[in-house]
Amino acid sequence: MSFGIDDLPVRDELRGKSPYGAPQLDVPVRLNTNENPYPLPEPLVERIAERVREAARGLNRYPDRDAVELRTKLAEYLTKTGKYPVTAENVWAANGSNEVIQQLLQTFGGPGRSAIGFEPSYSMHALIARGTGTRWISGPRSADFTLDVAAAGQAIAEHRPDVVFLTTPNNPTGNALPVETVLALYEAAQAAKPSMVIVDEAYIEFSHGDSLLPLLEGRPNLVVSRTMSKAFGAAGLRLGYLAAHPAVVAAVQLVRLPYHLSAVTQATALAALEHTDTLLKYVEQLKSERDRLVTELRAIGCEVTASDANFVQFGRFADTQEAWRKILDRGVLVRDNGVPGWLRVSAGTPEENDAFLDAVRELKKEQDA
Amino acid sequence: MSFGIDDLPVRDELRGKSPYGAPQLDVPVRLNTNENPYPLPEPLVERIAERVREAARGLNRYPDRDAVELRTKLAEYLTKTGKYPVTAENVWAANGSNEVIQQLLQTFGGPGRSAIGFEPSYSMHALIARGTGTRWISGPRSADFTLDVAAAGQAIAEHRPDVVFLTTPNNPTGNALPVETVLALYEAAQAAKPSMVIVDEAYIEFSHGDSLLPLLEGRPNLVVSRTMSKAFGAAGLRLGYLAAHPAVVAAVQLVRLPYHLSAVTQATALAALEHTDTLLKYVEQLKSERDRLVTELRAIGCEVTASDANFVQFGRFADTQEAWRKILDRGVLVRDNGVPGWLRVSAGTPEENDAFLDAVRELKKEQDA
Repeated sequence: MSFGIDDLPVRDELRGKSPYGAPQLDVPVRLNTNENPYPLPEPLVERIAERVREAARGLNRYPDRDAVELRTKLAEYLTKTGKYPVTAENVWAANGSNEVIQQLLQTFGGPGRSAIGFEPSYSMHALIARGTGTRWISGPRSADFTLDVAAAGQAIAEHRPDVVFLTTPNNPTGNALPVETVLALYEAAQAAKPSMVIVDEAYIEFSHGDSLLPLLEGRPNLVVSRTMSKAFGAAGLRLGYLAAHPAVVAAVQLVRLPYHLSAVTQATALAALEHTDTLLKYVEQLKSERDRLVTELRAIGCEVTASDANFVQFGRFADTQEAWRKILDRGVLVRDNGVPGWLRVSAGTPEENDAFLDAVRELKKEQDA
Repeated sequence: MSFGIDDLPVRDELRGKSPYGAPQLDVPVRLNTNENPYPLPEPLVERIAERVREAARGLNRYPDRDAVELRTKLAEYLTKTGKYPVTAENVWAANGSNEVIQQLLQTFGGPGRSAIGFEPSYSMHALIARGTGTRWISGPRSADFTLDVAAAGQAIAEHRPDVVFLTTPNNPTGNALPVETVLALYEAAQAAKPSMVIVDEAYIEFSHGDSLLPLLEGRPNLVVSRTMSKAFGAAGLRLGYLAAHPAVVAAVQLVRLPYHLSAVTQATALAALEHTDTLLKYVEQLKSERDRLVTELRAIGCEVTASDANFVQFGRFADTQEAWRKILDRGVLVRDNGVPGWLRVSAGTPEENDAFLDAVRELKKEQDA
């Protein structure tokens, strides 16, 4: 055996682990990572090149450590779309919402502290908790993937976590949380500790309902986390952000790595924010394709979880891995998130969705035969 | 009092702390953060715009999670300049060497573990240790800022740290470590635990001597960390990297946030790596300016620490803060790193260095009067 990870003095909990990440396979239709299928419009591509050229002329200098211009523009976007006014003081940005969450856990979680999420949910919450030394508590979710307020509140009261994750719309199941659920669990979290409540709204632009941003009013222990990866069609940009009380923004600045956000990232994000209206039109197309996927999958005979995201959870399969493989054999890559019986498909272009639906139809026929 | 950080449930060790970062003041001559004073050449600026335009066309997709092309080009650069052949398998990249170090501490440090550095040194090592729950041990440095191998080895034997930081050239003092010192302390670290030894070579391109890259041969617990911020004149890019045994690269992939390195960062770094030869010419200019600063500061009557970096530590001042302020009053911003009696100046353009030397001359005259 050659020298490997376990021959190094790595932390015990890393031994035998594999890196997180969906399989990167070269197939015609990739609907496995909830990417936006629409490339950025060419005028925006040009604007990015222009703003990055400008930024490159000052690249020998450190970037704006506090990313004030970017946070101002993100605040304007939130104010315009979130039905609640925020300013740069309420907003913080980092390299993907993963880094936002990492900074929040370094600030409010960490060694000797704990965080809870209601699973199945976004699996990075648990992984980032592990990476920051935060004890992870797997909270309950009902069989239909909704949150039972009583059961969830009970788990919070029992474990008294320092951080509570509420993901809405939830990934990988797709369903959104009713505002009353979030309010009740925020109260439960305050009564138990008080703890920070992180509402992960990575997919909120695709929801039938509104952002929970207005709940920030009078709730300093609430954080809303967002990303430009999905609605802005910019997964490659790695730009996540949060909205919260200014004290939260000040607090994460105690743990953020200085100059964490490069000048080219800031310039690219600013260019994209100039084109918000165009990008949100793609969101409307994707929402209607998402609704079509739900309808047609049900017509084919699949069970489908109600979706407020740009993806749909469908099933149920006696052998999930086999179903995943058979869809892949037809040239379509979907995601097996480890939820027994269920798979997840991202809403693609109409043609990609047709190819996916055809594959599922054939699979169903084969299974029913 | 309005609601502030301490009203939030932040971790106890963060209470009363301020964010890390040099004062950002608007003055004519800024020589406080070791930036490269030379803007990127215009052909490189154009090439960055071109590569980023290309990357922006696929920005709706996640970036290459493993940054293989970038790591291949970084390996070629190291092989060419470091007198030791490495491949992409030996190289890992992240958003600044700070993130590289954070990932290393998450892998090899963290809760229940400890790291040592020999201070004064790069203060982020201690701060990132705190941020990752790694206990920090402040190791000894001699009064002349060199490392005493016996004293340093004794500290390693006594504390048995999991991670040992050796910074060469050292920041903020500027002096490089003899290769024998690094070898002796690597052995001491292996005998004590074994521990990982991180050689931070952020400023190595400015050194009179060679990189310690060849020491990687047969030493899997050694890591060499690097950055494009200084020699590549790209502080705004935030691109740090490391070279080590492939097992180390595999290990940090267990803790890295997935898709941590954006497509625009990868594209920009790749463009810069195409222009290595041009950029290294600026390094030669800066080295000769650095040597001039040392000579002239001594002629003025300052004490100066021998420098292998793009900055110079000079003193000594009875009142360091007053000296810093008086140089600032003359339009030149230098750095007070909290080393009593000493200040640090980055090598700027010849004109900037002249302005700085004039300011120190006047200060000296005033003090001698």
